[in-house]
Amino acid sequence: MAIKTAEQMAGEQREISVAEFFEKNRHLLGFDNPMKALLITVKEMVDNSLDACQEAGIMPEIKVKLKIINEDRIKISVEDNGPGIMKEQMPRIFGKLLYGSKFYKMQQSRGQQGIGVSAALLYSQLTTGKATLVRSRTAANKPVHEMTIRIDTMKNEPIILNNITYDKTFNDHGTYIEMEIEGKYRKGDRSVDEYMKETAISNPFAKFTYYVDSEKIIYPRLIDKLPIEAKSIKPHPYGVELGIFERMAKNTKAKSVLSFITNDFCRVGSGTAKAVLKMAKVSPNNKPNHLDHQEIEKILKGLQKSKIMNPPTNCLSPIGEQVLEKAVQKDLKTEFQAAITRPPSVYRGMPFLIEVCIGYGGELNPKGTAQIMRFANRVPLLYQASSCAVTKAVQSIAWGQYHVEHQGNNPTGPLVIAVHMASVWIPYTSESKEALEPYPEISKEIRLAIQDCARKLKSYLAGKKRRQLDAKRKGLFEKYLPTVADALADLSEENNAMILKSLEVIVKKEKIEGEDIDDAGEAEEIREETNE
Amino acid sequence: MAIKTAEQMAGEQREISVAEFFEKNRHLLGFDNPMKALLITVKEMVDNSLDACQEAGIMPEIKVKLKIINEDRIKISVEDNGPGIMKEQMPRIFGKLLYGSKFYKMQQSRGQQGIGVSAALLYSQLTTGKATLVRSRTAANKPVHEMTIRIDTMKNEPIILNNITYDKTFNDHGTYIEMEIEGKYRKGDRSVDEYMKETAISNPFAKFTYYVDSEKIIYPRLIDKLPIEAKSIKPHPYGVELGIFERMAKNTKAKSVLSFITNDFCRVGSGTAKAVLKMAKVSPNNKPNHLDHQEIEKILKGLQKSKIMNPPTNCLSPIGEQVLEKAVQKDLKTEFQAAITRPPSVYRGMPFLIEVCIGYGGELNPKGTAQIMRFANRVPLLYQASSCAVTKAVQSIAWGQYHVEHQGNNPTGPLVIAVHMASVWIPYTSESKEALEPYPEISKEIRLAIQDCARKLKSYLAGKKRRQLDAKRKGLFEKYLPTVADALADLSEENNAMILKSLEVIVKKEKIEGEDIDDAGEAEEIREETNE
Repeated sequence: MAIKTAEQMAGEQREISVAEFFEKNRHLLGFDNPMKALLITVKEMVDNSLDACQEAGIMPEIKVKLKIINEDRIKISVEDNGPGIMKEQMPRIFGKLLYGSKFYKMQQSRGQQGIGVSAALLYSQLTTGKATLVRSRTAANKPVHEMTIRIDTMKNEPIILNNITYDKTFNDHGTYIEMEIEGKYRKGDRSVDEYMKETAISNPFAKFTYYVDSEKIIYPRLIDKLPIEAKSIKPHPYGVELGIFERMAKNTKAKSVLSFITNDFCRVGSGTAKAVLKMAKVSPNNKPNHLDHQEIEKILKGLQKSKIMNPPTNCLSPIGEQVLEKAVQKDLKTEFQAAITRPPSVYRGMPFLIEVCIGYGGELNPKGTAQIMRFANRVPLLYQASSCAVTKAVQSIAWGQYHVEHQGNNPTGPLVIAVHMASVWIPYTSESKEALEPYPEISKEIRLAIQDCARKLKSYLAGKKRRQLDAKRKGLFEKYLPTVADALADLSEENNAMILKSLEVIVKKEKIEGEDIDDAGEAEEIREETNE
Repeated sequence: MAIKTAEQMAGEQREISVAEFFEKNRHLLGFDNPMKALLITVKEMVDNSLDACQEAGIMPEIKVKLKIINEDRIKISVEDNGPGIMKEQMPRIFGKLLYGSKFYKMQQSRGQQGIGVSAALLYSQLTTGKATLVRSRTAANKPVHEMTIRIDTMKNEPIILNNITYDKTFNDHGTYIEMEIEGKYRKGDRSVDEYMKETAISNPFAKFTYYVDSEKIIYPRLIDKLPIEAKSIKPHPYGVELGIFERMAKNTKAKSVLSFITNDFCRVGSGTAKAVLKMAKVSPNNKPNHLDHQEIEKILKGLQKSKIMNPPTNCLSPIGEQVLEKAVQKDLKTEFQAAITRPPSVYRGMPFLIEVCIGYGGELNPKGTAQIMRFANRVPLLYQASSCAVTKAVQSIAWGQYHVEHQGNNPTGPLVIAVHMASVWIPYTSESKEALEPYPEISKEIRLAIQDCARKLKSYLAGKKRRQLDAKRKGLFEKYLPTVADALADLSEENNAMILKSLEVIVKKEKIEGEDIDDAGEAEEIREETNE
């Protein structure tokens, strides 16, 4: 046996680049089969385009093209009218993993990690050996920059193969990316088609043009205003871990501990701060980077035990109830839809809010399990439904109570349940961003939102049933009116025709006494619904 | 709205260190709750100790201590008698993510990524703010080195806080690590206790001493020999992706394309190589780093379409059937056990093999679902059972056919099914290394192995039933022997006592004619079993 010494083992140790790591472990980023790889590539590009447009205050117009080269190869291009990318930034944004602007911000955005589009590029070169073309312009009076980019995997650094500047016809501002990957195009569930449809629902302020070879679908803009801006916030003490708190104390610009904890965090007032410092026996004027480990731990524990207001929630940008209903109605052709935007809530110091829209009937498939659409910061989630907080919440609801048919825990029938989570930090269960971690606070909010919409649906269904019943009764009654009139004429010796006419007038009032309303609450909801 | 230009956005772009990335996304490494964090920390340390001992040809003796500081805090220490770590290597092995020797090797080992123990250290400092103590010695005539280490998260580099060299009493060679984490100790499923028990089963050549505060459990060594050495192999063309093939061509030391593809890969003979190059219209003497993209693609495609022998499988180190049976019998006190080590197979160019041991009866819990133990390169997998290839294989088997009770797809009763996958590359479904990806080749091997053991179990159960039946019949017969003897004595006028004695002799032969054996195959298996 080749026995090794510590010295020999030491000689084998080496640094591994993050690009190599993810190249070998690409399933962690979701590139585990050709269908999913295609979806994720499109998604990362579109996410970036939408984020950039929103940040720049531009109404997005995005073109997505799939060109199917053969069964296993697809060329993907995405073009936007966004703010464009500075020439100097282009190589690193596309050719370096873990590079970006969103990682450090506590802000609601689609991308968060600085890993998405560069991972797609890595996958493209791994599977096809080809480089990625990027073209961008920042203003009409600026030139168009075009590069082909690869990643030096061993170093996690970009390699620029071709770099030209020209005045070619292009949008006044915007970015165009084109890459070829090993991928499979399929229709149906979890397809790019489905992704585009759902993205149009959650981003009704954008116009999408989607091509698959020569086929073309346009998703027009449904509203003419960008959503309210998602602001970035400071961390809240409830969501900060000891190690990070310690690092913040070492690196802060604040000169005193007091100003450190009141300025670098949100919602810590000077009263609370002083009380906590007193308990921890630390002078408010101490330098934060002079604190020792024990002091730091005492201060953070003190803060976490204090009553501190929840973080501000104006940092969140919901889709909005009316917009959501309109988008569901327009894109899915439902006969009924009810949405709710819940008030913001907090998990682990992170503000978040849940929105739900339930759509019913119309052109929805009347058979089988209801469709669940999951969105995180407006991005549709198409994989790992079963481990997602949304699916678990849907299955935890007693659908029978809401007169919704169900098989086991799953609602069935012509029903769609769209759930959107907006947050400064989405807790995905994996880096491929496919499912939401079911933190108790999040699960609770999703349940409450679904129940709210389900109650409205119940009223609608009850109303619909009642109207059907009324119509049936009325029909029956009308059928026998002449007979009744005859009988009454015989009894009263009045004119038959007169009696019949009077009876018809009564029936037309459509008032039937003794309605079967389940409970007072439902009656109230019906009234609410009628007012809408 | 604060509208941003491309220039302003560029100013916000930043590089993110891999340590920061995993600090923020620690759930990806499995540190998502305090119970699991404890398990993973212990596991990473023990994995490293076992790997190092095996590489150095040392029979491992490992001490694992948990000291419960309070409900949320645990101090963990692991001490081994391994080869020790060179002073220069200590900081980077523990204080830098993505640093190690195993990432580049195609070799069966527990650790693979160079991320495990440094991730535990990162988690420790994040949750407790404390540094990790490491003590190591490489030989009796060398000093003991001791350091306390932190990670500079922003740079992913180690910080050495304290560095002393002394002759303190310590093993002649070995390593001691001690860290404090936010963790929860619990008994039962998926606990450290369960992990230690299963680790002892899959590593019967090691001695473990496991302390929880003052409680102590010793798992003695069951065999006195290290497993056969796991050798590292060259990549097989079937498992190489285009991007990696291209990179290998650029970086190879080979002077010609022919020597590149015959020397840098396994199983590519010069005949195959020449034929492939001819098809690709590339001269065998070309320099590999002069190949253009098209040529490279043609060569790889050619290789992948050629018939190439499977990779060598002597690189794998199985536990072994007898060892596995012995370990299951000793540690779980079963009344029956059957194991099989399947011949090696290949998925995506990676050699792997599957071993299964089924244990039955004895001290196993007679009620409820059968216990499934999953091992990957001798490491027990305790989480994410439902998405693991092993669980899926177990549930795909018609247990009724093997006379094993079951509820739905799950076998029940006093049954344990231990499945071990050994491979140069374990396809985990996530970086927290909890479940095996169900590649078809892997799933098939697991099924075949389980079915093999299940057939042996069926025979055993049939034999057991028969013996019980025999005993019952014999009992009945004996009960009525005196009556029969009386009757015979009356009829034959022979001596009653004589007849009874003869009858008893016949019964003692324990031969009953007309046995109910289901089919010939089973009869054969019973014979096999009897021979063991």
